Amino acid sequence: MNQEEQVKLLGLWGSPFSKRVEMVLKLKGIPYEYIEEDVYGNKSPMLLKYNPIHKKVPVLIHGDRSIAESLVIVEYIEDTWKTSEPILPQDPYERAMARFWAKYVDDKVILALWKACWGPETEREKMVDEASEDLQCLEKELGDKQFFGGETIGFVDIAADFIGYWLGLVQEASGVTIMTAEKFPKLQRWSEDFVANSFIKEALPPKQKLVALFKTKFGSAKSK
Amino acid sequence: MNQEEQVKLLGLWGSPFSKRVEMVLKLKGIPYEYIEEDVYGNKSPMLLKYNPIHKKVPVLIHGDRSIAESLVIVEYIEDTWKTSEPILPQDPYERAMARFWAKYVDDKVILALWKACWGPETEREKMVDEASEDLQCLEKELGDKQFFGGETIGFVDIAADFIGYWLGLVQEASGVTIMTAEKFPKLQRWSEDFVANSFIKEALPPKQKLVALFKTKFGSAKSK
Repeated sequence: MNQEEQVKLLGLWGSPFSKRVEMVLKLKGIPYEYIEEDVYGNKSPMLLKYNPIHKKVPVLIHGDRSIAESLVIVEYIEDTWKTSEPILPQDPYERAMARFWAKYVDDKVILALWKACWGPETEREKMVDEASEDLQCLEKELGDKQFFGGETIGFVDIAADFIGYWLGLVQEASGVTIMTAEKFPKLQRWSEDFVANSFIKEALPPKQKLVALFKTKFGSAKSK
Repeated sequence: MNQEEQVKLLGLWGSPFSKRVEMVLKLKGIPYEYIEEDVYGNKSPMLLKYNPIHKKVPVLIHGDRSIAESLVIVEYIEDTWKTSEPILPQDPYERAMARFWAKYVDDKVILALWKACWGPETEREKMVDEASEDLQCLEKELGDKQFFGGETIGFVDIAADFIGYWLGLVQEASGVTIMTAEKFPKLQRWSEDFVANSFIKEALPPKQKLVALFKTKFGSAKSK
């Protein structure tokens, strides 16, 4: 596949999954055209054509070929453009660990955090405990590294963008608090370093717009 | 990591997830020691030590380092032992497609099939329809190729081992039929070729033992 072929991204401005792809495109300096999708209302013919299986964003279109699933897209970008600092480690074991933790965040932690903030009131305490345990595993994995990827932002940092940026706003909108600097000092410090990176910052959606969206769509946890 | 270091696999004899790893070890001719885990009863200290996050099989132990999550393990094996036919395509786009379909099987299809066979009776019809739609997507993706991987068994074939072998036995035990040669002629032909491969066959658990396990653990769908 020719690196020079045009890159388009079908995305959603507030989605941490879409933003994973934008972050990597920006980190690697790959020019792309961004196309906002109206996934709640009218799915575009382009979305239905390029992601007929899931009909969801993000979708990367490279030349005339398309790829769906954010972490699959990130690995595709990594395999195709070798121009900058790699996102995944070169050592097979370190690479497996990065995939393991990214999958852990993707399959388990994000869902647990979401349910803890916006799940049924009757299950709140249990879900807050579960989400806290998950964050504890990440706190331990991060340890004294600056990023999960070491000295630079890597695959797990990208996968964990929800924790680095969205979680604080979800907590603000829902009124449920799980991650604090007292309980998770390392993750808290990491999230500050993560959003301070100029490429990441450039990809992030505006705070107040996100909080407003959450409040409108989900309300506060206390009102349920 | 030295390829010569000892390989151990913590597994469960009837699990399609454990068997994915055994299949790839056998296909690549990598010697390993197999250790059966009692995941329902007494989890061994070894399992708790080597997979403290999920405490589940399969776990690959290579030297003194361990890896969990079956598809992460398969990619690790692929990245570490370059000795035989690759499991993943070399082209970045084909590789992304293999990861996409493996994820689709892993996240969506297996769960839909399981629920269709053993979910609540009231949801049976809906779940059978959903599982059939999923299989239809795979039927189309397989097309006229011998395997999802082309002329040889690849990443998606390994990920789909549940469909290639377990599904027929789950159908026999539950009395629910979703995949037939009439509705899915290509998948049916594929499943026959898949289990006929000598390395795959060697890894598969005995039919009658699996059916007996399913009947004891889950009963037939009709009795619910």
